[in-house]
Amino acid sequence: MLKKIEHIGIAVDSVEGLNGLFEKLLGTEVYKEEVVQEQGVNTSFLKVGESKIELLEGIDDNDDNVIKKYLQKKGPGIHHIAFEVDSIEDEVARLKQLGFIFINEEPKKGADNKKIVFIHPKSTNGILVELCEDLSPNSE
Amino acid sequence: MLKKIEHIGIAVDSVEGLNGLFEKLLGTEVYKEEVVQEQGVNTSFLKVGESKIELLEGIDDNDDNVIKKYLQKKGPGIHHIAFEVDSIEDEVARLKQLGFIFINEEPKKGADNKKIVFIHPKSTNGILVELCEDLSPNSE
Repeated sequence: MLKKIEHIGIAVDSVEGLNGLFEKLLGTEVYKEEVVQEQGVNTSFLKVGESKIELLEGIDDNDDNVIKKYLQKKGPGIHHIAFEVDSIEDEVARLKQLGFIFINEEPKKGADNKKIVFIHPKSTNGILVELCEDLSPNSE
Repeated sequence: MLKKIEHIGIAVDSVEGLNGLFEKLLGTEVYKEEVVQEQGVNTSFLKVGESKIELLEGIDDNDDNVIKKYLQKKGPGIHHIAFEVDSIEDEVARLKQLGFIFINEEPKKGADNKKIVFIHPKSTNGILVELCEDLSPNSE
């Protein structure tokens, strides 16, 4: 079962350039920035209720950089929606049995101290869905 | 200030056809369906944490039907993100002063007993943002 919207991932040309816009919109400040080298992204986070907004900027010049590819194809906008789960392994098993197709079944290390997997948009009405399990010692 | 993600609006070809997929994904059942004639949409809702997923299907043959136009241009996927506010008039005033551009400044009646306004994607990094104020007598 998916517990809550953990975050909405938004593809931006520049985290530095767009932090201010989202701070004004949400009426709150960016509380964290983090580079995730494995994914080739620079990220920033803002809180809204129990969820977060994650800004995502591609930072390597690899042709496969997911954010740069997304921006070229679709322009800036909502890139993915992430749901929090208690056990990522249990959810992958549950959803595979129901016919959902995963981009990666083996969890990867994501930003914000999370284990993450992605479900392929072809099995979710065109939406890139992330599942994430919090690895922080003090998480609920 | 925006209080929480009230819902994520997802454009679908058919609410009936896609309810099952989202019930399986979220591990919860659709708790409400509602036709909003003014907007030309059929909607259904599922809960996840403090937020909702709203499926949106265009139901009139008007060439201006927003969901049908969206589906033709971009295909099924995330259509908008809606944030809850205490006072829609106060938030419109706050955000206008900060330079945000509204599609409608005068609140409209939306699904789920809400007053709603939309901010134009050109002022929000390509994202269609809805603000909504709950009109239910028992809302928090």
